[in-house]
Amino acid sequence: MPDFTLHPQLAADTVPLGDLKLCRVLLSNDANYPWLILVPRRPDIVELLDLTAADRAALSAEIDTAARALKGTAPCDKLNVAALGNMVPQLHVHVIARRRGDPAWPKPVWGAVPAKAYDPAARDGLVTALQRALDIKKT
Amino acid sequence: MPDFTLHPQLAADTVPLGDLKLCRVLLSNDANYPWLILVPRRPDIVELLDLTAADRAALSAEIDTAARALKGTAPCDKLNVAALGNMVPQLHVHVIARRRGDPAWPKPVWGAVPAKAYDPAARDGLVTALQRALDIKKT
Repeated sequence: MPDFTLHPQLAADTVPLGDLKLCRVLLSNDANYPWLILVPRRPDIVELLDLTAADRAALSAEIDTAARALKGTAPCDKLNVAALGNMVPQLHVHVIARRRGDPAWPKPVWGAVPAKAYDPAARDGLVTALQRALDIKKT
Repeated sequence: MPDFTLHPQLAADTVPLGDLKLCRVLLSNDANYPWLILVPRRPDIVELLDLTAADRAALSAEIDTAARALKGTAPCDKLNVAALGNMVPQLHVHVIARRRGDPAWPKPVWGAVPAKAYDPAARDGLVTALQRALDIKKT
């Protein structure tokens, strides 16, 4: 079985936070929304259905973990959870903390407004807080 | 505990296919995409995290069931799975069969183009095929 390699588009658009048991956890480089992306570290997986049942259960649990970490770290009125993959085929799950009045609210975030660069110090603070909430160390 | 009642906006936008063990299964009234919506039949649930762990596991299994039913019934290049809920707070999960070249491709479907009414005969045929694939009877 080939090794897992993160899709270059996901690598380009995110900061890695570290690994949970199944997933690499990424922070989207978009200061508009606290936005995690979970990528199961399995090669050649496109659909949720491509995962084994055990991996699907693990992913579901890690979505919960990511959602709790976001809620505990960032002000949030609604969580958005989605596996789309129309542009980047490698299976990845978005977990996004939405606030009423954020730049896309109430629409979905994808394509709504251009990504906004993080202030580096704010990003580093968020990364550290999320790593603590997720109980992971940076890879 | 109050009874489950389907949110009126979800009722207005869909055709009911029937019930799985946890979820009411709806077909979106939009002929642009074969599009199922799963609604856990629990009162006052907004976030995935509001479900019990057992219900979350059941929902995950029913998402798989819906995805397999769609794939087996409609031509499909990619499945999109999402729990957003920014406009309709009652927890509901979209499972959408996407095709390269569909009216929104490769963007997400929400807000991309106006919903397209089904030809009634085509809709009834799809409803029957999906009910068979889901092994449910219409409520």
